[in-house]
Amino acid sequence: MENIVTQEILELIEQKKFGAVKQIIISMNGVDLAILFEELPPEIWLKIFRLLPKELAADTFVELDSDLQEALIKGFSDKELKEVISELYADDAVDIVEEMPANVVKRILKQADPEMRKDINQLLKYPEDSAGSVMTTEFVDLKSHLTAEQALQNIRKTGIDKETVNTCYVTKNDRVLIGTVSLRTLIISGPNEEISELMDANPISVTTDVDQETVAKTFKKYGLLAMPVVDTENRLVGIVTVDDVLEVMQEEATEDIVKMAAIVPNDKTYFKTGVFETFKVRFPWLLLLMISGTFTGLIISSFESRLTLFPALIAFIPMLMGTAGNSGGQSSVTVIRAISLEEIHFKDILKVIWKETRVALLCGLILAVVNFLKIFLVDISLFGSTATVIDNIIVCLTLLITVVIAKCVGAFLPMLANKIGLDPAVMASPIITTAVDIIVLVIYFGLAALLLGI
Amino acid sequence: MENIVTQEILELIEQKKFGAVKQIIISMNGVDLAILFEELPPEIWLKIFRLLPKELAADTFVELDSDLQEALIKGFSDKELKEVISELYADDAVDIVEEMPANVVKRILKQADPEMRKDINQLLKYPEDSAGSVMTTEFVDLKSHLTAEQALQNIRKTGIDKETVNTCYVTKNDRVLIGTVSLRTLIISGPNEEISELMDANPISVTTDVDQETVAKTFKKYGLLAMPVVDTENRLVGIVTVDDVLEVMQEEATEDIVKMAAIVPNDKTYFKTGVFETFKVRFPWLLLLMISGTFTGLIISSFESRLTLFPALIAFIPMLMGTAGNSGGQSSVTVIRAISLEEIHFKDILKVIWKETRVALLCGLILAVVNFLKIFLVDISLFGSTATVIDNIIVCLTLLITVVIAKCVGAFLPMLANKIGLDPAVMASPIITTAVDIIVLVIYFGLAALLLGI
Repeated sequence: MENIVTQEILELIEQKKFGAVKQIIISMNGVDLAILFEELPPEIWLKIFRLLPKELAADTFVELDSDLQEALIKGFSDKELKEVISELYADDAVDIVEEMPANVVKRILKQADPEMRKDINQLLKYPEDSAGSVMTTEFVDLKSHLTAEQALQNIRKTGIDKETVNTCYVTKNDRVLIGTVSLRTLIISGPNEEISELMDANPISVTTDVDQETVAKTFKKYGLLAMPVVDTENRLVGIVTVDDVLEVMQEEATEDIVKMAAIVPNDKTYFKTGVFETFKVRFPWLLLLMISGTFTGLIISSFESRLTLFPALIAFIPMLMGTAGNSGGQSSVTVIRAISLEEIHFKDILKVIWKETRVALLCGLILAVVNFLKIFLVDISLFGSTATVIDNIIVCLTLLITVVIAKCVGAFLPMLANKIGLDPAVMASPIITTAVDIIVLVIYFGLAALLLGI
Repeated sequence: MENIVTQEILELIEQKKFGAVKQIIISMNGVDLAILFEELPPEIWLKIFRLLPKELAADTFVELDSDLQEALIKGFSDKELKEVISELYADDAVDIVEEMPANVVKRILKQADPEMRKDINQLLKYPEDSAGSVMTTEFVDLKSHLTAEQALQNIRKTGIDKETVNTCYVTKNDRVLIGTVSLRTLIISGPNEEISELMDANPISVTTDVDQETVAKTFKKYGLLAMPVVDTENRLVGIVTVDDVLEVMQEEATEDIVKMAAIVPNDKTYFKTGVFETFKVRFPWLLLLMISGTFTGLIISSFESRLTLFPALIAFIPMLMGTAGNSGGQSSVTVIRAISLEEIHFKDILKVIWKETRVALLCGLILAVVNFLKIFLVDISLFGSTATVIDNIIVCLTLLITVVIAKCVGAFLPMLANKIGLDPAVMASPIITTAVDIIVLVIYFGLAALLLGI
């Protein structure tokens, strides 16, 4: 649908029917307009942007890609820049400033009014991914002695500039947070009821240094729409709103997912990450895991001369490694996710291992039986494998034992990592697979030595 | 902290100081109370629950585990059950009903008032994971001819029973949705302004059958707090609120993560999934991937007699398979996530493959060089490997070629899967690894045949 609109607008622009273009775009929202801008040729960005009414222009501006924002800012007059900035919320302004080159940042700060400048500078100080860095400084604060009626008047006067008025924050004179009160409560209560009676005096809050992932989890746990952020003296300094939390949740899920694939996370989109950058986030683990392959090589080498006597055994190595690796990968990913969702903790380790052992025995037994039959019916009868019954027993026993060990290792390593303060997500398939490869070979050759006397 | 409170409460209960217990728990919120209940012995659940004021009791009840809910319902008198149900929102009631055995459901429906019963029955009809199944039927609807003042009076009267009043919905007489208006707008505008002038006449909405994942994406895209759900005739039937979306986002991320580890997703927590159930979600892929190992076995078997002449080559097979598998896993997971976040589409396929090829060439070249040196300096000099220079060249060439192919296959398969309507998340490491194992062997043995004349 967007493409039809874009097509229509491009045609209207070609025919210089800017009045008609304006008619269409002023009925759109900022998000869809930002998508439209990406499709337009750069030379008309400024022209189209100037057709937008002030508020919609700001709504659109915050949604744009930083390259596009930069191009527009460079084309803006000081007055235009000032207008756009004055419509922004401080947290959005900070997001923009963080992506701009120094000279553009200087221009932005120069055009921002003093209060906005102060807010931006303050927010820039918080560490990346902390509650302070995702909060906004625009909120409604009320005093507890006000009545509901007075509070509503207050909101009427100041609320237009605040990011959200659905929840208001009750503070003492020294800005210490003492409660929250929802706009709904203010509306529904009698006009003369006092805020101190209406407010929730035990609001859930975080300090500025708390990690954004914890902030997101707290939102989910308590079903919040906004959460106050306080300094170490419990003074209210900002609020985090749920729309920012949706972004955080997505970012954190992406980070976990790529870590599990042995990639160093970065926060850019696929096409925004250049080839060399992509190389940099993927290469370290590939190198480390390749070098750890030395051990599997060593084990095979040390059995080399004996293996040549029983060549049929070699053919099963990839299948055994693959199955054990997949088994361990399943339990590690399940456990990593459960740790991240706080469903399991280190104290549950025996319960987890016990559960994984039973699951693994079930999986391993049935896989071993199927494999035993398969080797006879397919590999030997159909494809002429030279595997003997003893070979087959060695393969299937290895399968059973390694599936059990792999599942336990896969569950244990992430829990251990978490316990000692490492990120459990790193202990996913790639590491587990490499560890399990070694275990498979040791057990396989050990059983071969035992049963074949090699 | 929770544990200290639990300890304190348990002691107070032992001393039969129920007044003191009540003092503590009435200052807590439903979420934390639900956590507390999990820690209490079942025989006092009902006793403690009865200490809670009506509203907090309902808040706590919805947060409880379904086993605990069932136990409480069985202990409730009809009057108590009726009270709890009357405080619930319809969507929460449905979530509870879905987990209960038939006789308990009957009792719940009997105690629900007729309107609630109608709502529950209606919501139960929508397919699982659809917008209809996550929406609530309690919202404020207004007529467009009302003034802001009249609308506020309306909200004062009816808003207490609605899940959210922050956004109100404007409908025509036949319930057709024509706009939305925020409570903030109603407060801030002049009392005599008409809703038709104040409302957003292009609200973003979904139909009841839309998948919950799409609903969550729309929330994130537009930064919404609530979204109207309409039927095929654009009649308003419910709203989805952002707190439910946070749940959905987490569920969907979990689903993607476990699928990528070759697990069939289910929506239970780690410990709620029994051993046999865990077996069932993990076994199918293990079996399939094990059986596909037949191919790697076949390839090795067919080279068996020749391999015994060059035993040094065998030692490098696991390292080659591991590195190619990890390379393919990295690109597949990156692409799967980018597809899920709608950063890439099928039309980008050539761009993606071109990027992956360049990244893979960089990774593959450096890995091959490092490996070449490692084989000389470590494997041969240190560990006495019998690999020759030609062997080393074969290994490193295979490494380079398979890293490039693996990265392209890893990027291509998820995009193809998505194009033909399959879930791209299935095309993650386990499948890629198995596919890549075969490619590695074919190239390795092919190069060996070429360069060693075997």
